[in-house]
Amino acid sequence: MQHNQPYQHADQHTDHHETIDAIIAPQEQLNILSKTEAAKLLDISQSGLYKLFRSCSLAVLNCGNSLDDGKELLERYPNFDIKVIQEERGIKLDIKGAPASVFVDGKMIRGVSEHLFAVLRDVIFASGDRRMADTRELANQDNQLSAEACTDAVFHMLRNARIIRPNIDPNIIVCWGGHSISVGEYDYSKKVGYELGLRGLDICTGCGPGAMKGPMKGATIGHAKQRLGQGRYIGITEPGIIAAEAPNPIVNELAIMPDIEKRLEAFVRAGHGIVVFPGGAGTAEEILYLLGILLHPDNANLPFPLVFTGPASSAAYFTQIDEFISSTLGAEAQSRYQIIIDDPETVARTMQQGIAEVRTFRKNTDDAYYFNWQLKIAPLFQQPFAPTHANMSKLALHKNQETHTLAANLRRAFSGIVAGNVKDEGIRAIERHGLFEICGESSIMQPVDELLQAFQDQGRMKLPGSTYKPCYKIIK
Amino acid sequence: MQHNQPYQHADQHTDHHETIDAIIAPQEQLNILSKTEAAKLLDISQSGLYKLFRSCSLAVLNCGNSLDDGKELLERYPNFDIKVIQEERGIKLDIKGAPASVFVDGKMIRGVSEHLFAVLRDVIFASGDRRMADTRELANQDNQLSAEACTDAVFHMLRNARIIRPNIDPNIIVCWGGHSISVGEYDYSKKVGYELGLRGLDICTGCGPGAMKGPMKGATIGHAKQRLGQGRYIGITEPGIIAAEAPNPIVNELAIMPDIEKRLEAFVRAGHGIVVFPGGAGTAEEILYLLGILLHPDNANLPFPLVFTGPASSAAYFTQIDEFISSTLGAEAQSRYQIIIDDPETVARTMQQGIAEVRTFRKNTDDAYYFNWQLKIAPLFQQPFAPTHANMSKLALHKNQETHTLAANLRRAFSGIVAGNVKDEGIRAIERHGLFEICGESSIMQPVDELLQAFQDQGRMKLPGSTYKPCYKIIK
Amino acid sequence: MQHNQPYQHADQHTDHHETIDAIIAPQEQLNILSKTEAAKLLDISQSGLYKLFRSCSLAVLNCGNSLDDGKELLERYPNFDIKVIQEERGIKLDIKGAPASVFVDGKMIRGVSEHLFAVLRDVIFASGDRRMADTRELANQDNQLSAEACTDAVFHMLRNARIIRPNIDPNIIVCWGGHSISVGEYDYSKKVGYELGLRGLDICTGCGPGAMKGPMKGATIGHAKQRLGQGRYIGITEPGIIAAEAPNPIVNELAIMPDIEKRLEAFVRAGHGIVVFPGGAGTAEEILYLLGILLHPDNANLPFPLVFTGPASSAAYFTQIDEFISSTLGAEAQSRYQIIIDDPETVARTMQQGIAEVRTFRKNTDDAYYFNWQLKIAPLFQQPFAPTHANMSKLALHKNQETHTLAANLRRAFSGIVAGNVKDEGIRAIERHGLFEICGESSIMQPVDELLQAFQDQGRMKLPGSTYKPCYKIIK
Amino acid sequence: MQHNQPYQHADQHTDHHETIDAIIAPQEQLNILSKTEAAKLLDISQSGLYKLFRSCSLAVLNCGNSLDDGKELLERYPNFDIKVIQEERGIKLDIKGAPASVFVDGKMIRGVSEHLFAVLRDVIFASGDRRMADTRELANQDNQLSAEACTDAVFHMLRNARIIRPNIDPNIIVCWGGHSISVGEYDYSKKVGYELGLRGLDICTGCGPGAMKGPMKGATIGHAKQRLGQGRYIGITEPGIIAAEAPNPIVNELAIMPDIEKRLEAFVRAGHGIVVFPGGAGTAEEILYLLGILLHPDNANLPFPLVFTGPASSAAYFTQIDEFISSTLGAEAQSRYQIIIDDPETVARTMQQGIAEVRTFRKNTDDAYYFNWQLKIAPLFQQPFAPTHANMSKLALHKNQETHTLAANLRRAFSGIVAGNVKDEGIRAIERHGLFEICGESSIMQPVDELLQAFQDQGRMKLPGSTYKPCYKIIK
Repeated sequence: MQHNQPYQHADQHTDHHETIDAIIAPQEQLNILSKTEAAKLLDISQSGLYKLFRSCSLAVLNCGNSLDDGKELLERYPNFDIKVIQEERGIKLDIKGAPASVFVDGKMIRGVSEHLFAVLRDVIFASGDRRMADTRELANQDNQLSAEACTDAVFHMLRNARIIRPNIDPNIIVCWGGHSISVGEYDYSKKVGYELGLRGLDICTGCGPGAMKGPMKGATIGHAKQRLGQGRYIGITEPGIIAAEAPNPIVNELAIMPDIEKRLEAFVRAGHGIVVFPGGAGTAEEILYLLGILLHPDNANLPFPLVFTGPASSAAYFTQIDEFISSTLGAEAQSRYQIIIDDPETVARTMQQGIAEVRTFRKNTDDAYYFNWQLKIAPLFQQPFAPTHANMSKLALHKNQETHTLAANLRRAFSGIVAGNVKDEGIRAIERHGLFEICGESSIMQPVDELLQAFQDQGRMKLPGSTYKPCYKIIK
Repeated sequence: MQHNQPYQHADQHTDHHETIDAIIAPQEQLNILSKTEAAKLLDISQSGLYKLFRSCSLAVLNCGNSLDDGKELLERYPNFDIKVIQEERGIKLDIKGAPASVFVDGKMIRGVSEHLFAVLRDVIFASGDRRMADTRELANQDNQLSAEACTDAVFHMLRNARIIRPNIDPNIIVCWGGHSISVGEYDYSKKVGYELGLRGLDICTGCGPGAMKGPMKGATIGHAKQRLGQGRYIGITEPGIIAAEAPNPIVNELAIMPDIEKRLEAFVRAGHGIVVFPGGAGTAEEILYLLGILLHPDNANLPFPLVFTGPASSAAYFTQIDEFISSTLGAEAQSRYQIIIDDPETVARTMQQGIAEVRTFRKNTDDAYYFNWQLKIAPLFQQPFAPTHANMSKLALHKNQETHTLAANLRRAFSGIVAGNVKDEGIRAIERHGLFEICGESSIMQPVDELLQAFQDQGRMKLPGSTYKPCYKIIK
Repeated sequence: MQHNQPYQHADQHTDHHETIDAIIAPQEQLNILSKTEAAKLLDISQSGLYKLFRSCSLAVLNCGNSLDDGKELLERYPNFDIKVIQEERGIKLDIKGAPASVFVDGKMIRGVSEHLFAVLRDVIFASGDRRMADTRELANQDNQLSAEACTDAVFHMLRNARIIRPNIDPNIIVCWGGHSISVGEYDYSKKVGYELGLRGLDICTGCGPGAMKGPMKGATIGHAKQRLGQGRYIGITEPGIIAAEAPNPIVNELAIMPDIEKRLEAFVRAGHGIVVFPGGAGTAEEILYLLGILLHPDNANLPFPLVFTGPASSAAYFTQIDEFISSTLGAEAQSRYQIIIDDPETVARTMQQGIAEVRTFRKNTDDAYYFNWQLKIAPLFQQPFAPTHANMSKLALHKNQETHTLAANLRRAFSGIVAGNVKDEGIRAIERHGLFEICGESSIMQPVDELLQAFQDQGRMKLPGSTYKPCYKIIK
Repeated sequence: MQHNQPYQHADQHTDHHETIDAIIAPQEQLNILSKTEAAKLLDISQSGLYKLFRSCSLAVLNCGNSLDDGKELLERYPNFDIKVIQEERGIKLDIKGAPASVFVDGKMIRGVSEHLFAVLRDVIFASGDRRMADTRELANQDNQLSAEACTDAVFHMLRNARIIRPNIDPNIIVCWGGHSISVGEYDYSKKVGYELGLRGLDICTGCGPGAMKGPMKGATIGHAKQRLGQGRYIGITEPGIIAAEAPNPIVNELAIMPDIEKRLEAFVRAGHGIVVFPGGAGTAEEILYLLGILLHPDNANLPFPLVFTGPASSAAYFTQIDEFISSTLGAEAQSRYQIIIDDPETVARTMQQGIAEVRTFRKNTDDAYYFNWQLKIAPLFQQPFAPTHANMSKLALHKNQETHTLAANLRRAFSGIVAGNVKDEGIRAIERHGLFEICGESSIMQPVDELLQAFQDQGRMKLPGSTYKPCYKIIK
């Protein structure tokens, strides 16, 4: 969210789409590739990894720029190319036509070059690991086997990325919220991050600007004051969203999950508590995902600290969210979160106390601190949802089902809207086939409609400066 | 400067002067004391160190609060006490009645507790080291021996504090400027710090808020993006100023020099270039100190990058400074600095290039990167200046002397005004004997008067909220 | 080899087969397991990993004791049990009935507990990795695909074990030689290790006592004097040999390869040069393996430093080896090694120079320093050889074939003899079916017979104290 | 003790007194010098430090050679020169004519170059520190002030050398014993070191070969097996003895105390327990020093683990020492030590238990773990003893004094003999004035005579190969 950034100077020249070529070497000793792996990255065929590696890399390299549309990005840098080179000391990346904004005096910002190697690592791992192949096959079978295999795949991706680690007390706060928020909301998210950082808590977000960046910046200052040199700023993304929400260079641990469902599962398995800032459709999707899971009867007694927060100016926003949840999912759903307005210190203290309960619970049940094995996630939340016009139109949006199942279907509705707004695939589908049609029981569709309308009115659907064109039509 | 801080929440309760007691242990393995040293710290007699240690410690503990008056601070926390305890694993500090604002949920911010141990280290070292005793004796002798001994004392203080270190390329940017600046100036100083940090440059300031804090915060983010985990945020202070300009907890290397002259010498010997932001009398003192030294004929060929910078809104301020220098010290003085308005990136690049020249020069002359041995500092700049009414009134402020000597005397005039404004000793002197009278040739006194008046008009003499009462009278 | 150990005190009580129970936690942050992985380790069925994990673990825990017979070991500690426990901070190992000799005052020697976690890591990885499954299937197909897959599998095992790492200049010296050697030979191997260590070279061996331990101990002292705190003592073993050659606790990087052929390939791909000390049938197997590979026409120009060395008292031994090679493989084979008697310093210098050539060669050909991709290894050297009576009797031991193929077959003959001497499976086969019969052209069988007889006469076939009963019969 | 070293190869060429020139840079960031300090090191006048720096440096560089005579060393390398050079990144040492044996392929062994910088550090510190000057002045005054100042000086030397450190549990075992011992005794000292190292204990000795080197080598292996990468091998020496007992390169913390008395005080203040191996006159001096202190009534309840140990072959030696102590100092002295023959494991366990008591005692009395402040050392043990013929002849060696005073005087007698044997000054005195005459009560002189005669008979007075010429005459 450029206009919120205090440091926009570095971005100026990117308006001309200036590019730079560079050879990048990894700083850490992480990356050596077999000949087969290197070949796959250069393989431009459908079975090869080149296309995926290139598009994720370009997204990472675009982090300084305001743009939330994957398709536009690919068109803006048509000459961008990235190749692995094998040398005697290890691999390097040969990059052509990269956005100039991630270079300082011709040298790539170290944080960004680390992100490129994270992309490399995850693209290779997802492709080479047997479990990923298994979950792809099993994705469409609605059974328990699939659920366990999905969780196992998430575990292996995160372990390989070293996001999950033993011997650390629970301290990961997931921050969700919009990438397009107001200056006041952004500054507030920094203050919350600062208070979290002062208490030794680490930050995990979905990458990108706005509410995903503010808490990390604040925590950086908080950690510096507490001399927590190893502060973690974890970004979890996936190929479909990374272009719109490129990881800020402060992110020092980046994981690219294979799809949106595994990304969401990664948040709730690796995080120990969640703070939700104001946001748009994506944030609503995340809230519905989380409430849907927490409403599953098996999770009734599982502690999971969840706070919705914003500055005084955002109070109305959360009232609206709260009412939407009340009228669709009901009081039980409301009991799983706490709304705190304009009080960063209380937010931080609430999370710290909540996490202490998580710690006790895991200790008592011998569950790992680093992975929330006990959280039950129903298959409906794990199976990739393809936001096609057909799938969108046949979502079961009525109250004649278990609440957590309704939450899952509502989540899919918002997921489709996010795709139609910012994902390459979704945008092209809308271009070809017109607006998504979403229909359901009016006691549900009415609140949905109002919420989406409010998001539009508040400018939460698109980056400022652009006019939002809805990608959906509500059929009540 | 509290109103500029994005994170003021932690400070709220300090309005009540809440206090906390605590036992603090050093985190690093730096501090073990002999029995004699420990005894000196507890010795409340004149020859003991207790009084000095207590007042500097309280200043450090007051960092979250807005207050720039040493005397007021001592009165506000009358019950504050600090004692060294010897235990089997090393020393600890037993603290009573400390300001609550440096504690997070009852635990002292780590950065602040490190500062306490830095105070301890420097108070002990200055007291125990033979050279310090020597320089105190020699302070009033205007000869070369004194000059060398002073420089040696500065060297030993800085080496003991590990501020100077071998094997590092020149990269320390000293940032000077006011502790009471506007929001716009503060934000600008953050941007400059960010661009410096992105280029791997470290920050050294005189501690305190405003222009001393902004660049460090900006550099913290810049360093984080470049993964420079060992970024250095050096604060150099002295017992007389520390109450008014308490080190921000981001400062991760703190040195308390014995007096203002050694503090200034520390900046120019350890720093590799200087950026001056807008400020008041203290900043003017620093500028005059530096120009006075650079104007010494022996330093004519010594590279020393010096940039004055601020946002567009501060352009007029620097025009005024420039004119003041022009009319008092002349064109040669003007040739030693560069004024850059509203362009953080150019400031950073200019410093980087300047430092490259410093590096080449030192390499070619076999001078140390970590200590500017070759810089000639005349004794007039080294001898402590006691800002008594007598000394203030007899300053030689005329053009019938070498320019660098005039600069030295002008520096002393501004130094006295700073003392009268914020130093415990100075404030008491004004209370007892009335305003300082400063007189001199009108071609000098006129610009001095105008500059001071402008500082007053712009609110640069005092923290916002308080009304400035001048401590001086200009006799033209 | 106990009688060579200066530190045998710790081993005394093991004569009673004392055992200790313990819970062991990993020191490093390496080991977290998925639920599936943990379950596999507890699975005692044929498809589970329990049996393999238990036997390798017991071998590791037996490192202080003299015993070179896998079968005997399993019988000696019938109550030994090892189980993975999942706790909130990560996994631990619950061990029952472990040999007391790896405990100091009731606490397991840290090096040994690290080895247990290395076993865990490699057993899990070999079981979970797709490539391992592939190579098992392809093992019996004599074609190029198999060769590449084998090499890929070796690469992945070594990368996962972090044996191969980027950004390190070539410096791994593989030391081969007998685990049952004389005091003089052992002391000599320490001196060679010391000279290698003084030159910053790291040591890689097949684990075990004698010539596998001496160089590591010497290098430890050499590294200490050079302050090389990160000295690497790499042990590469496999399930079939680990009981006989348990890793010494000095080994700080341990890899358990899936089979003997991958273990040998690991040595020649990861090592940069090889020193061979006196040994028995196992050492002869290794020499034949290496010469067979180096004799492949594709490797004719590949630099590969290879030195045979021992104290003056071992001169005759190497004369015999040299004559054996001369009469079976000929002068070209002889040209690939250098024999240096009683001169550790020259050995170290020769290796250093040889490695400098390796470095230049890899640099010029853009091959990795950490993995010898260019070395051509014919499938015959990669396919596991099952030392059955049938396979042993039909080995093609005649000169009517390419020299490198003859070397491969000779290698298999010696491999079978090693199995018959010390491997569980081999010992049981001999017990059931009588001696192996090895037949071939007399110009080859005559030197083979003489060499084996000499090994017997010199006590190189068994640990001292036991009488060697041959497991083979030579049919000329 | 060369003939005990397993690694003598490196020493061969030193028989020709080959020398090498080199420029040495410090590896750590410890050494930056002021201009004044650098000048003092180059100052060859009496007030300068050049002579002292040169002789200690040469001693350090001679570590690989067998020679225990300071005078001979200075004559052997007449062209040796060492100079500090100041460069932009810090200081370097320019060395001419250094013994070739500390170079490996032309590069100085890192451990040795570290020792040179330790010499530099301590020579500079002892010269610049006020306390050292004070203790030199006070040295001849037999009063309490002197005692405290001496202890303070020892503390400051050790703190500056970072030998004493906070936050570490007591674990420093001081090992005393001869530098000229038998192969069996040497190997035994390695085994003891190994068992100490396995238990995480660190080693401190007086540097040099034999019993000062063996425990360090053993502990190096023990630490390696326990992965204690930060194992400490502390050497404490002084200018008069360093030539005879050059620090082995394994020593990774070296302190050069100003004189023999401060060296001995350093052992008992910084060490937590002492193991005495067989030795000669120097070892007897150390035993008498320690028993004299422990016999002081103030120390009656102070725990101080002390073990005399050696292999079975040395049993008679310790019987003799025990009898000597019995007949001179009596049963109370005997109660302060334990004799353990041929059992390294029990030695290590005994020290570990003793240190646990030390820990409890310090904790209960709030005394520092890192410095034994409570140990009372009478001035007689602190005042430097000049081993002149006059001083030697008037030692009070009779039983008509407190036992701890008798021990002090006996200590001085043995100290003088050590000087006459190996110290430059002592050897020259003997050359000029003939043998020392030592006289006293026959009930004391008889055991002294027998002990010294036994040392001679057992070859414990000189390096093997040389014939011992006594430097004293006993007058009963």
